[in-house]
Amino acid sequence: MKTNSNLTEAIQKLKDIVGSNNFIDDDKEMDVYLSDWRNHFSGLSPLILKPTSTKMVSDILSICNQSSVSVVPQGGNTGLVGGSIPSILGDEVIISMEKMNTILDIDPVNYTMTVEAGCILANIQDAALNSNRTFPLSLAAEGSCQIGGNLATNAGGTGVLRYGNAKELVLGLEVVMADGTIINSLKQLRKDNTGYDIKQFFMGSEGTLGIITKAVIKLFPVSRNKVSTILALPSIDSTVNALASLRSETGDTITAFEYMDRNCIDLLLRSLKINDFLNERYEHYALVELSSSRKNENLMAILEGAISSSIETEHIIDAIVATNETQSAQFWNLRESLPDLLKRNGDFVTFDISVPISKLGELIEKANRICSDILLNSQAYIFGHIGDGNLHYYLFNSPEVSVDEFLNLKDKIKVSIYNLTMQLDGSFSAEHGIGLAKKEELKNYISISELELMKLIKKSLDPKNIMNPGKVIGN
Amino acid sequence: MKTNSNLTEAIQKLKDIVGSNNFIDDDKEMDVYLSDWRNHFSGLSPLILKPTSTKMVSDILSICNQSSVSVVPQGGNTGLVGGSIPSILGDEVIISMEKMNTILDIDPVNYTMTVEAGCILANIQDAALNSNRTFPLSLAAEGSCQIGGNLATNAGGTGVLRYGNAKELVLGLEVVMADGTIINSLKQLRKDNTGYDIKQFFMGSEGTLGIITKAVIKLFPVSRNKVSTILALPSIDSTVNALASLRSETGDTITAFEYMDRNCIDLLLRSLKINDFLNERYEHYALVELSSSRKNENLMAILEGAISSSIETEHIIDAIVATNETQSAQFWNLRESLPDLLKRNGDFVTFDISVPISKLGELIEKANRICSDILLNSQAYIFGHIGDGNLHYYLFNSPEVSVDEFLNLKDKIKVSIYNLTMQLDGSFSAEHGIGLAKKEELKNYISISELELMKLIKKSLDPKNIMNPGKVIGN
Repeated sequence: MKTNSNLTEAIQKLKDIVGSNNFIDDDKEMDVYLSDWRNHFSGLSPLILKPTSTKMVSDILSICNQSSVSVVPQGGNTGLVGGSIPSILGDEVIISMEKMNTILDIDPVNYTMTVEAGCILANIQDAALNSNRTFPLSLAAEGSCQIGGNLATNAGGTGVLRYGNAKELVLGLEVVMADGTIINSLKQLRKDNTGYDIKQFFMGSEGTLGIITKAVIKLFPVSRNKVSTILALPSIDSTVNALASLRSETGDTITAFEYMDRNCIDLLLRSLKINDFLNERYEHYALVELSSSRKNENLMAILEGAISSSIETEHIIDAIVATNETQSAQFWNLRESLPDLLKRNGDFVTFDISVPISKLGELIEKANRICSDILLNSQAYIFGHIGDGNLHYYLFNSPEVSVDEFLNLKDKIKVSIYNLTMQLDGSFSAEHGIGLAKKEELKNYISISELELMKLIKKSLDPKNIMNPGKVIGN
Repeated sequence: MKTNSNLTEAIQKLKDIVGSNNFIDDDKEMDVYLSDWRNHFSGLSPLILKPTSTKMVSDILSICNQSSVSVVPQGGNTGLVGGSIPSILGDEVIISMEKMNTILDIDPVNYTMTVEAGCILANIQDAALNSNRTFPLSLAAEGSCQIGGNLATNAGGTGVLRYGNAKELVLGLEVVMADGTIINSLKQLRKDNTGYDIKQFFMGSEGTLGIITKAVIKLFPVSRNKVSTILALPSIDSTVNALASLRSETGDTITAFEYMDRNCIDLLLRSLKINDFLNERYEHYALVELSSSRKNENLMAILEGAISSSIETEHIIDAIVATNETQSAQFWNLRESLPDLLKRNGDFVTFDISVPISKLGELIEKANRICSDILLNSQAYIFGHIGDGNLHYYLFNSPEVSVDEFLNLKDKIKVSIYNLTMQLDGSFSAEHGIGLAKKEELKNYISISELELMKLIKKSLDPKNIMNPGKVIGN
């Protein structure tokens, strides 16, 4: 581990700031902070700090900035791109937000909640429900991810179609800047045009511009009423047309529109040992959920009416509607089982990409052709949040190709799919962010002027480059 | 008019860039560009430029930046805070975006539209409707304001409760920076986590950081079905509780919740020569609209059910529901007549303030007390977008007080109301922005750290301070 007198001196000061109960410097206890949960990224660190107040975070950053000691902010450490892992040089201090986990205020009349950054997402969801409100951010890691991390990475998840990404759920933030300055912009206001909207600089910046310490988040009425269906569709173009039409016909009550292709359905039937749920085999499926906060809303009738319209225009060919909660839960179990089943299905390369919804058909058709050309008999498994234009595209190796050969081809496949996505005005990182994993690609897939502007912002807000260096656009 | 060789030389270059059809340098023709529509602000300028392409805007700024010539971007010139008016020194060039007014693309499946910044808001609304979609930004100036200005000032309006402020309706922007660099971030994506969200820097910056040249805006399903009611409420606290409950009970289909106090109602009855529309006189009223894109939605039943629940909890005391479109238009006519009637009602001072919705009761009670203390027998007239926590508070002079005396007291009233708003965690400029009008107040009502951060951003993005100098935080 790299140490120098600067770092050693700073470490002692940092320990004094947080007190003996609020740091870890024992190698063994540090382990969980040094690797991501999938074990794709790992690093070293001399010290894990667990501040209990904004003042402590400010004092920590003040010392680090003065001493040019780099910091890595860490929430629940559930990210997928290595954004919360320190470098292997062992000279970066980790600031874990886990002890700042108090829900400070719930205001059901204002439909807002004020929270510390270390609050676990599931706890926030529960607290909202206890006040007869809902916080709609929902993702697989919700039992361990922290709201500060969700906002710093602009998390997506299953509620985006109706409620927007994480940053669209925020009214105010408290942030500590690289030099320790506390920016208190903890507003509970739905309208406020007083100068630049500075909270926006920090959301999606993955901890490279400052540390989010508190947030005011938006709440919504609780969905008392839900109905789910699995649709069979003749093509991707019909799928996106069915979605566009359903949004309008259902009064925009759609809360999920999750696509699954035939390969995904076959994998589910095989693995879960269940029979096909429609009378015929189709190529394209969507799990759709409507929900409403009105107890008496007849969502079933609304759904059936909307499906009938789309069957008439031939955008939907078949459908099964869940008639009770058990069946609805079974439908959702299919969708939620997919990522794990896919991970155990062989060697693969996967993409988290998005395009304008109207270009999804073209994306999938061309991606499949590109992958077949590079890797004969490879199999694409495709699912995703069609409503957000966001696909998770898994490409599995063919039985005839060795693992080594597949590994060699991975980069070519990646570059080809990213290039295609960009040709279709898409994003090569729709919801997972950049972190360490996609840093090099970022340079290729955004314009020089965008990259230069990002670097200018970084340099202005963190001139000594101490905030999560080496991530996103960093050196 | 101030001229120097630098400016003279630059002016010739700028004229050459746009060509003879695309500038005005004749003093008489310039007039409409030099004052705001209310004649509260006016300035001078040597040249109005009307670029027809992004490239032209870039060339203009490049020259201006090299020559240190300041520019004032101007949309429809309908702002209320002087943000689009040049200084009286006459050394600032105006860039009017009126000729960049093409709707570039409408994608109903992706629910997006791509527009040039000079498109008039009403034309955008019409184009959306022609594609069976709606663009929900709506405000009094929509017949002449331009979308670029709406985004640069983060316009509010009547649709905020359901659809958000202007900046929440944007997926991508093209912007020209102070030095002429074109930032193309014209994305049509609902999910895109590739680095910092740079479009956010420019929305709400009132032309001080760059010029918005194009935008991708979100569309929504058309509301085919609407119902309106006027509610009578026992208190402000009941009003906000009724809103909270109605949001939940109506499945979040409320698209407007506009408060009017008794004084406003009396003014309307008097001026429009109509009878009171409920059997008794009440102190507090709200005009509420539900809407849905579902043709067959029984909004009337939903509304009546929700009102009944709130009558049971005594948050609503009386209501009149519009039984047809004519009656509904009459209700809206009341609300829309108010601002003009108020302006002709005597000497007044007005505030565009917001607080957390749950603190509106306290705000109004304390504001009324403060105003009575300062100005005996003054009359407050209060209306506003309660759903956004945003009030328009008009205080009228008392008959016993001379105009001069009232003018002398205005500042004291302003400071007291702003101080109160800030004590209640509110905003002293909810939707109208800062511009010139509230520049001095901004320094008092945001924290030093926020102001310093804004200045840092300004200095980084516009080091020569040529972009709309003197506005918002500028010198």
